[in-house]
Amino acid sequence: MKLALIGVGLIGGSFARAALSAGEVSAVVGYDADSAALSTALDLGAITEAADSPQAAVAHADLVMLAVPVGAMRGVMQAIAPHLRAGAVVTDVGSTKADVLAAARDELGAHFARFVPGHPIAGRERPGVQSSEPGLFRDKLFVDTPVAETDPEAVAGVERLWRRLGCRVERMDAREHDRVFAAVSHLPHLLAFALVARIAGEDDAERKLAKAGAGFRDFTRIAASSPRMWRDVCIANRDALSAELAGYRALLDELQAALDARDGDALEEVFRAAAECRRTHAPRLDAE
Amino acid sequence: MKLALIGVGLIGGSFARAALSAGEVSAVVGYDADSAALSTALDLGAITEAADSPQAAVAHADLVMLAVPVGAMRGVMQAIAPHLRAGAVVTDVGSTKADVLAAARDELGAHFARFVPGHPIAGRERPGVQSSEPGLFRDKLFVDTPVAETDPEAVAGVERLWRRLGCRVERMDAREHDRVFAAVSHLPHLLAFALVARIAGEDDAERKLAKAGAGFRDFTRIAASSPRMWRDVCIANRDALSAELAGYRALLDELQAALDARDGDALEEVFRAAAECRRTHAPRLDAE
Repeated sequence: MKLALIGVGLIGGSFARAALSAGEVSAVVGYDADSAALSTALDLGAITEAADSPQAAVAHADLVMLAVPVGAMRGVMQAIAPHLRAGAVVTDVGSTKADVLAAARDELGAHFARFVPGHPIAGRERPGVQSSEPGLFRDKLFVDTPVAETDPEAVAGVERLWRRLGCRVERMDAREHDRVFAAVSHLPHLLAFALVARIAGEDDAERKLAKAGAGFRDFTRIAASSPRMWRDVCIANRDALSAELAGYRALLDELQAALDARDGDALEEVFRAAAECRRTHAPRLDAE
Repeated sequence: MKLALIGVGLIGGSFARAALSAGEVSAVVGYDADSAALSTALDLGAITEAADSPQAAVAHADLVMLAVPVGAMRGVMQAIAPHLRAGAVVTDVGSTKADVLAAARDELGAHFARFVPGHPIAGRERPGVQSSEPGLFRDKLFVDTPVAETDPEAVAGVERLWRRLGCRVERMDAREHDRVFAAVSHLPHLLAFALVARIAGEDDAERKLAKAGAGFRDFTRIAASSPRMWRDVCIANRDALSAELAGYRALLDELQAALDARDGDALEEVFRAAAECRRTHAPRLDAE
């Protein structure tokens, strides 16, 4: 099977390396707007051939993997749609699904039936193909969000491939996916970025950061993630994320009021609910 | 040297085990309001003797370590002051320092000159002496906040001991300490507790948490910390924490406005400042 990889970054590169080393694909034609990323990908063996354009990359592909920031998906789909082989399956790894589905419906024409929207719940805070790892998806969750029109064979093929790379697979409705990940992924990223940005903007940033310990390290790890990717995720999922953020801010309002009123019981009640929940889920989370 | 340990939890237990195994103390008389913690501490060898009261624990001690939640410090100081040996050094491991200093000044009388306020920047999210580790302080930072009246010999002795346990030592002003740790520790804890508490309170909490990945795991690790301890820290440091929280909420207001206006550039600017800062500090933080 011949794979076209559009977007040669951390996730796309890891996917291609894993698929090659599992023997699931025999060749990977890669395209990236960043030519340095393409040559690093060649050096690493993440792609077997570099293409000059998305169109050229997909021309002979059986499977097309879109691994660009979600804000770039529509443009790529527009570019490749006329050049896809009949029968080619198209899939993606975007962190949001409703907007990617909508773009695919608009842009892929007859190929939309063989578009399988996907999201592997895996990553590292350091972006780029140079950080890619063939084992990145082992024991991780892969979520797909097919719709009524999606060809069941295309879905089965994509799911089988992710299982081969070590994932457990779960199907979800795209809007439900976006709502859930707004809460457990997109909001935490925004909050971590905000915390570090605030400290970074202060005169005594260095003094403060020199004192930070392991709690700060873990809380802010995701603040090193790709700003471009997360900008796109936030904008693409703005409705669900905005609702989550509004709810969270309301809770912070309550906590600030409790703090200012020296109401330790009110603080402790919130802390206790969190600690019980987090401890209960520790075994599953720590296995991630 | 004979150590009295008031509060036999994660930090106190780890300190006593480390000091015993380094040969810095020959005996540890422990007291804790929780008698189960005391017997676990005896079983683990964190203390060599259990006392019935704080007063009894300190009666023969050369060094008294206060390792109770900061809200309990004043009461303990009141109880032990009349029973301290002449020349005994008293120290603590509280996460806030101005309030502990104020309590010591009020309660310790003539012993205040030999009170060395301390804070090791080390911990684990699982509380309790059963989670204690003699190596917990290796390569960590120990901050102390002595005042003009503090006996330099008492300070030097406490600092020497923490260095022996593997810490680098830094002296700070107590108010400055509280301001810095409000930003890099207390606020992140409050934010992580709030995020998990909000999800825990929803009908679909289990569904959401089943989808959470490594980013959520790391961001929320500190939300498993002791609710009682963090309630006390927040209340004790409410002025500095309240100011940090207010500033953070103002930034969230801006991010929500940017999100609702689909202003990706404004989001990306904040994310970029954070990512650059976090990546720059990654080598130091990852060594924690």
